Amino acid sequence: MTDFARTRALFELPEGIVYLDGNSLGPLPRAARERVAREVSREWGEKLIRGWNEAGWMDLPETVGDKIARLIGAAKGTVVAGDSTSINLHKALTAAVSLAGPRKVVLSDSGNFPTDLYVAQMALRALGGGHELKVVAPEEVAGTIDDTVAVLMLTQVDYKTGRLHDMQALTAKARENGVVSIWDLAHSAGALPVDLAGADADFAVGCGYKYLNGGPGAPAFIYVRPGLGDRIDPVLAGWMGHEAPFAFDLDYRPAGGIQRMRVGTPPILSMASLDAALDAWDGVSMDDVRDRSIELSERFIAEIEARCPELTLASPRDPSARGSQVSVAFREGYAAMQAAIANGLIGDFRAPDIMRFGFTPLYIGMDDVVRAAETIERVMRDKLWDRADYRARAKVT
Amino acid sequence: MTDFARTRALFELPEGIVYLDGNSLGPLPRAARERVAREVSREWGEKLIRGWNEAGWMDLPETVGDKIARLIGAAKGTVVAGDSTSINLHKALTAAVSLAGPRKVVLSDSGNFPTDLYVAQMALRALGGGHELKVVAPEEVAGTIDDTVAVLMLTQVDYKTGRLHDMQALTAKARENGVVSIWDLAHSAGALPVDLAGADADFAVGCGYKYLNGGPGAPAFIYVRPGLGDRIDPVLAGWMGHEAPFAFDLDYRPAGGIQRMRVGTPPILSMASLDAALDAWDGVSMDDVRDRSIELSERFIAEIEARCPELTLASPRDPSARGSQVSVAFREGYAAMQAAIANGLIGDFRAPDIMRFGFTPLYIGMDDVVRAAETIERVMRDKLWDRADYRARAKVT
Repeated sequence: MTDFARTRALFELPEGIVYLDGNSLGPLPRAARERVAREVSREWGEKLIRGWNEAGWMDLPETVGDKIARLIGAAKGTVVAGDSTSINLHKALTAAVSLAGPRKVVLSDSGNFPTDLYVAQMALRALGGGHELKVVAPEEVAGTIDDTVAVLMLTQVDYKTGRLHDMQALTAKARENGVVSIWDLAHSAGALPVDLAGADADFAVGCGYKYLNGGPGAPAFIYVRPGLGDRIDPVLAGWMGHEAPFAFDLDYRPAGGIQRMRVGTPPILSMASLDAALDAWDGVSMDDVRDRSIELSERFIAEIEARCPELTLASPRDPSARGSQVSVAFREGYAAMQAAIANGLIGDFRAPDIMRFGFTPLYIGMDDVVRAAETIERVMRDKLWDRADYRARAKVT
Repeated sequence: MTDFARTRALFELPEGIVYLDGNSLGPLPRAARERVAREVSREWGEKLIRGWNEAGWMDLPETVGDKIARLIGAAKGTVVAGDSTSINLHKALTAAVSLAGPRKVVLSDSGNFPTDLYVAQMALRALGGGHELKVVAPEEVAGTIDDTVAVLMLTQVDYKTGRLHDMQALTAKARENGVVSIWDLAHSAGALPVDLAGADADFAVGCGYKYLNGGPGAPAFIYVRPGLGDRIDPVLAGWMGHEAPFAFDLDYRPAGGIQRMRVGTPPILSMASLDAALDAWDGVSMDDVRDRSIELSERFIAEIEARCPELTLASPRDPSARGSQVSVAFREGYAAMQAAIANGLIGDFRAPDIMRFGFTPLYIGMDDVVRAAETIERVMRDKLWDRADYRARAKVT
């Protein structure tokens, strides 16, 4: 049984705050603070250029990738960390299209994170191969997969509602129809059990700064199915993905397997932070995380439905159809969330009216859930959302 | 007159080391150490998600871009930091090709950093427009620019020899012939005066971790000529380059100007380090840096030519044709550099036989140059390069 009191002690959480926004930016693990300080002062400051050999910087994208692999049902050597989720999705999509042969349809859904659709829109236009991005409603995806589809590109958990796709079933249907599959695990990795190998997915990408707690803008990751990597001609090429980076040959020869998904020099300070943050998962069972996440979010729903009739549940009511977040709709959601934050409960807001709360058992317990519900109740009862200063919008909402 | 004693005091350099490898990885500025610690503990640790608004994370790519702009002769609002140099070159090249109309030749040279050629090889193949990468010798570039060329893609300073291209003349010739120009400033930014606006260059990219001292793998940058940005359809699209990132529209609408060159969420810890490091340039004149760099490197050449007949100068002898580094060829250069490092002089090695030394007046003075020459003399005189432990190769050379 995972000891969540132990994992909670690994994080530095500000006093007096209930943090239900770890689905947007995970909090600071003590180990990450210490590691970054060491990386700066000792590795960079004292070793200088020798850090590339002596501090393990050169292999860090694979080291971090292997730690993430364990959390998403991927074999060692199939995941590499680096770049942003958007850049990694571009790598995956351009590779998938080239592997998919003459078919022209890239299938996605309107519950995908908009960036993923932007990546696809512009990548497909640039490739000039006449590919079409077909965006259907989430519930129509399964019925739309057929042998005209080249690539299935989905985010497993809807960033707004928390609606969870059945990765196993959809990937199986893609496989049966000869469709190359890409999964964005931004709200899955570290949130719930993922079994990429078991699902036989072709590609996956995901984020280092949400449930993995790597710090603001931490490097993202990319997974390529074993055996598939060697068949990819990377569209984004760079020396770190070359077979022999320090031979400085004038011709690109991609490294074997997942390593060719590397491009340029990785941001070591951010990568080291993620590396240290991932150690919080040692001894943690993703099944336990899932069970606990459901307990927490079920209680949260029960509490706010009992206390706040103004709010409408915007997430699936069935926990097995939901990721590790709960969203509620409220017409003054932006101001209400500002009021909640001012009163010690941090969640976030997504336009037009969604208040979003993430449940992260590594550092959030049942006491936090009850305190959160009490705060939301106060915001609603006292109409705190009606105050002018909470209504004034900031750049990032 | 720039006060180089003052700037030297801004850096934390290990005792007993002469560091002539700031052209590969700049040393640690005290301000970067303090800033990263603050960013981790206070902004991430205490502000959590609120850091995006309250700690300036959202605008950091432009904030940092503007600081770099000043060093490369670019106007405010024309440079943005983020991603790696390779990724930024991909953005610039795909944009340049689309702006260049029906011409098919991308002209570069064999003195370019190999990664830049890898980027071009794979990008042009992916675009499928029948573009050809034409690689000529550096001295043949000027004579090859004509109205059949679509894009001129060069690195101003040769990473191996330090040979400096005449940016002003080559860009002018490109402009006369309707050729879109891209400059890689990896070994120029912070090394010598650059005047992108004066040269009327179209695109530039560069590196944050060499002469700009941003830390290992610090984010890179991209410059787009004023007015050109709005004509680009980014191939690498992402929410941070969207006109309204938090509207979460399903369709991509690029932000105005340079902002559309942003893609995903930037690695804040690495970016903050670069931001703080750039403050070392306050009050520094690039003309003074250039004068001092030439003094240092001329003295270095004189010293080693007087002391070490075994070494052959591999850089241009004329300082006006050279960047801020000196390279010498020696058949046992790898082992000789290992011996130098073991004896307190850090430079680096580039295959097959180049020993490379960077001159960075912000923190390197004439005493260092003399000590460096003494160390190299000892390595040669005592044949330290012949020791087995120096001959054993590490992964990064």
